[in-house]
Amino acid sequence: MSDSALLAFDDEWHLASSLGVHMGIEPRPIERHRFPDGELKLRLPERLPHRVVLLRGLHQPNEKLVELMLAAPAARELGARHITLVCPYLAYMRQDIAFRPGEAVSQRHIGALLAHLVDGVVTIDPHLHRIASLDTVIPGVRCTALSAAEVLGEWVAARRTDALLLGPDEESQQWVARAALATGLDHAVCRKQRLGDRDVRIVLPDLDWAGRQVVLMDDVASTGRTLVEAAQACLGAGAHSVDVAVTHALFVGDAQSQLRAAGIGEIWSTDAVPHDTAVVSVAPLLAAAL
Amino acid sequence: MSDSALLAFDDEWHLASSLGVHMGIEPRPIERHRFPDGELKLRLPERLPHRVVLLRGLHQPNEKLVELMLAAPAARELGARHITLVCPYLAYMRQDIAFRPGEAVSQRHIGALLAHLVDGVVTIDPHLHRIASLDTVIPGVRCTALSAAEVLGEWVAARRTDALLLGPDEESQQWVARAALATGLDHAVCRKQRLGDRDVRIVLPDLDWAGRQVVLMDDVASTGRTLVEAAQACLGAGAHSVDVAVTHALFVGDAQSQLRAAGIGEIWSTDAVPHDTAVVSVAPLLAAAL
Repeated sequence: MSDSALLAFDDEWHLASSLGVHMGIEPRPIERHRFPDGELKLRLPERLPHRVVLLRGLHQPNEKLVELMLAAPAARELGARHITLVCPYLAYMRQDIAFRPGEAVSQRHIGALLAHLVDGVVTIDPHLHRIASLDTVIPGVRCTALSAAEVLGEWVAARRTDALLLGPDEESQQWVARAALATGLDHAVCRKQRLGDRDVRIVLPDLDWAGRQVVLMDDVASTGRTLVEAAQACLGAGAHSVDVAVTHALFVGDAQSQLRAAGIGEIWSTDAVPHDTAVVSVAPLLAAAL
Repeated sequence: MSDSALLAFDDEWHLASSLGVHMGIEPRPIERHRFPDGELKLRLPERLPHRVVLLRGLHQPNEKLVELMLAAPAARELGARHITLVCPYLAYMRQDIAFRPGEAVSQRHIGALLAHLVDGVVTIDPHLHRIASLDTVIPGVRCTALSAAEVLGEWVAARRTDALLLGPDEESQQWVARAALATGLDHAVCRKQRLGDRDVRIVLPDLDWAGRQVVLMDDVASTGRTLVEAAQACLGAGAHSVDVAVTHALFVGDAQSQLRAAGIGEIWSTDAVPHDTAVVSVAPLLAAAL
């Protein structure tokens, strides 16, 4: 990859450095200044090779989407001919249909924007539900959707040798099954009823919970409400312990303290989103895909 | 305009209503929900006519640019064939060259994005400096750049009958001259040295300042540092009073209290940016251009 440049922003420098080690190149910084009126100024390396890898995760996505709108065309003006966006967390994947008439289908529109900006996208565990493939979402772009289910599962298996891997809702079924297959651990999923952004009800599967080591696993956790409800249900049903392992630790607001208050022990995540719970690096996965 | 729809967001509803009165149509809301993880959900009217006027000013622009990325393609899916963006304040117009090698020329990239999204743009006093025309900035789109210099000048002239209209820097020369021409008032401009985002030095033109009613006029005020420096210079040179009239009152942070502390009396602006200093409406100008 010596004819490539790896560009990254300072708030993702830790992952950029790991990725650079695996790719055998030094990451180079995109300098970022925010004017008092909210406008951004970006500065890229003065000269770029034809192949550019641009690292930008999209947690708290809106301002970062504007960064991409500026950085991608600027990179082309500075020499890039092929830009691969490495986007460990890809936002705006949930609104994949108009649930009510008139709603903007943001998955499609953000996908079209990315298709307009870059030539390739590499991401981890995009939250696709009704749409099977990322290639449909970002048309004309070579997309690679990796999963951290196996590496997170292995982390869990080394620490909870008799764990039950529990998905908090039906959507997590396939993902949890991957982690279980990689580790030989048991797995199951709950049923979820969503009543609002922060209001969910969890129904546990019919199992013997007494004394079980439960590890709640999911691709993404935002407010953590689902995990809190699931943990309370498990502990109420007699589980010995509940830990959490997620690929994308968004954990907005007081999510983490809510998880602790619900009796959750360990919280493990990947560095796909920069977070203090990150224990598993996605850098090897990303580097292998590049 | 009965075959058109005027779409607006709730934080610009006041201007939308005025504009609707002048256009003879009722504005229709774009509902906006912000999820805890920062993602936006927009909902537009279920059915739209072929011609859509979308009102969205771009002060504190980044999230609003994402709104446009969602709203414009959603409007097309709902029936729009021609979208005119009414953007009373157009952001990202200042970075029109790379001042240092590697800098993203945000004016060009944001312009390209807008060109990708809409068919027409109507704006007020875009802060163009080295680029003569908005058509160059937003290629292939019909652009109309209006000016509030005359209507603001008339507002001032009715309240300060012997005012000197003073531009705080050379860039404001043409703009202040328009206000002066419309009103018959005297005008002049200062020289500005910028040392940082919030650090500027102002050199007054060589005039007799004793007892003068000075009205500082400009297209846009952000931190207000330039106006503060200019006001202090005028009052120090013997001016009787200093008021301020600007098209775009961004006034970030404590800008307004800084202006008051510097001895500035009245602060007048237009409703191109929603602000409590807005006294002159740009709705008639916008409606006439549509």
